[in-house]
Amino acid sequence: MQQPEPRPQSFDRVLSSMCTEPHPAARAAAERFLATNPGDPATYETVASLEERAVERLATLADHPSPSDAAGYVTSGGTEANVQAVRSARNRHDRSDVNVVVPESAHFSFTKAAEVLGVELRTVPVDDAYRADTAAVAAAVDDATALVVGVAGSTEYGRVDPIPELAAIADEAGARLHVDAAWGGFVLPFTDHAWSFGDAAVDTLTVDPHKFGQAPVPAGGLLARDDAALDALAVDTPYLESRSQATLTGTRSGAGVAGAVAAMDELWPAGYREAAERAADNAAWLAEGLADRGYEVVEPELPLVAAAVPEPEFAALRDAGWKVSRTGADELRVVCMPHVTRSALRAFLDDLDRVRR
Amino acid sequence: MQQPEPRPQSFDRVLSSMCTEPHPAARAAAERFLATNPGDPATYETVASLEERAVERLATLADHPSPSDAAGYVTSGGTEANVQAVRSARNRHDRSDVNVVVPESAHFSFTKAAEVLGVELRTVPVDDAYRADTAAVAAAVDDATALVVGVAGSTEYGRVDPIPELAAIADEAGARLHVDAAWGGFVLPFTDHAWSFGDAAVDTLTVDPHKFGQAPVPAGGLLARDDAALDALAVDTPYLESRSQATLTGTRSGAGVAGAVAAMDELWPAGYREAAERAADNAAWLAEGLADRGYEVVEPELPLVAAAVPEPEFAALRDAGWKVSRTGADELRVVCMPHVTRSALRAFLDDLDRVRR
Repeated sequence: MQQPEPRPQSFDRVLSSMCTEPHPAARAAAERFLATNPGDPATYETVASLEERAVERLATLADHPSPSDAAGYVTSGGTEANVQAVRSARNRHDRSDVNVVVPESAHFSFTKAAEVLGVELRTVPVDDAYRADTAAVAAAVDDATALVVGVAGSTEYGRVDPIPELAAIADEAGARLHVDAAWGGFVLPFTDHAWSFGDAAVDTLTVDPHKFGQAPVPAGGLLARDDAALDALAVDTPYLESRSQATLTGTRSGAGVAGAVAAMDELWPAGYREAAERAADNAAWLAEGLADRGYEVVEPELPLVAAAVPEPEFAALRDAGWKVSRTGADELRVVCMPHVTRSALRAFLDDLDRVRR
Repeated sequence: MQQPEPRPQSFDRVLSSMCTEPHPAARAAAERFLATNPGDPATYETVASLEERAVERLATLADHPSPSDAAGYVTSGGTEANVQAVRSARNRHDRSDVNVVVPESAHFSFTKAAEVLGVELRTVPVDDAYRADTAAVAAAVDDATALVVGVAGSTEYGRVDPIPELAAIADEAGARLHVDAAWGGFVLPFTDHAWSFGDAAVDTLTVDPHKFGQAPVPAGGLLARDDAALDALAVDTPYLESRSQATLTGTRSGAGVAGAVAAMDELWPAGYREAAERAADNAAWLAEGLADRGYEVVEPELPLVAAAVPEPEFAALRDAGWKVSRTGADELRVVCMPHVTRSALRAFLDDLDRVRR
């Protein structure tokens, strides 16, 4: 019996995802490379060289002083990149009982990393602006701190931690500094925030092409200032003609790599600037619309709006087909990705008006 | 300036990969789902339900007594599945200083797992037939053994360990049993080997659709007899409307999930049987051709041929464009995947004849 062909939902009402519709050039490239594996570079040489290009382009975007010297690879996503940054810092530290200091705004992948890797996670509060409290970070670090994490574009409120101050604290403690710019990385170059290799003594950085980079899933990115961070992750690889493997996963997606390169070739920097500005405008417009309706709104800093919309209205919006999600404080959360248009947001507010009557 | 559009190499001369050309239906499904993320099931509902179907089909293939009760998910590949099996066993064991017992034929992902997870890896020898030496395994296990690993289709020689015997040893030691059938899983149902949930007290099992399953990369598979194995991996997930996440990666490939389901819908079981039989015939034919030329051949048990071809000939074959790789003992290794045709093998032997003159 012929089953109906499954189709993904359209992005029209997706306001909860940090992924987006890939750029058409990125989609086409991904389709060409669906059957390749950058995890086996001696067999799949073309995609292996595309991955080098991806890393260099990501390093350019993240203002690395010498992009061709940056180390890194295209991960399955931000979680893998964050886990690997913690693993690298753990492996490079002298002590075996290391800890990692993260603000409470950090993504849950750091909880996962700590559990997987057997390191202590020290979670410190954020300040009134939802940014890492530097005094709390300074109080939390000690001789066993392998890594301090700063978030550049937090998952809940899109906030950017004071990266240079965190770098100074990490340096003082003999720890590495990791910046999680998984979502923010393709927007931040067009803002005044200090977040990059060029702005501070950042050791490793997560930046995901499959989020604001408009690449297809899966295409995350781990960058490191130099090779040592990745060398600390390498295990020997028999049966592959390549020598060793620093990635967490083995087989990896050539579609993601090729898609990421195609998106960056096409959009860096003008296309990304335009997308970032449009998203910022949309976020400001939505924040104003929600405030006008009397909701308490967390002012957007990057294109992400949170507002205290009560549970019955939230549930009714989901019933109406809107994919929305909540912050830890149960606020409604809307991520203004490139696929989120002004007219979609207008329809969303219309539906909100309808359900709150 | 317009750059030439990068294209992947053709599979014509790829004899080294455990991945293959996806089935056309699988490719089409993957293309439709390129922009979905099964890691966020409340946003991407269609692909989340496809993943349930993938797990049930994999459990059917792996002879689970009740496929709809099997737990599991579509991983990025065999490495993630193996790492997660070790992590689950570690987390479920009473002691904190656990060890994992693997035959030396186990994939290097277990070395990676041990390093990442901070568990001791006890590597034991194989017997004359390249299969786990059960006496050595029995001698290696102790109260701190969380997991015994059996390989069902080894990477180097395609050998199947004595899974029921390993299960008995694991049971006796209070350890779990994991079967790595990443590559072999889609071939073994058409052989007499004992390898599955139905054949022994297997707790977890790796079986990759993107290998002999003819799904596009990335589509690995982790299966567990019941939910407890996955529950031991769960971390809380704020911002996602789903409750928790048991996967190692966060964002995952919807293309891989949809591609795997489409391939299995299309090929299970008749298409896979046919592919397995053709591959076996090709491997036997190649082994005979190599033996006829005087090379020492490791007799193929599954469709993988190893032969003592000296380094200069190996290098000349690679120079001629053949993607081949080597075993740890420096033998030439040819994986007879579905894309490897008899005429390609004929051309390969012709080239071998040319280069060894």
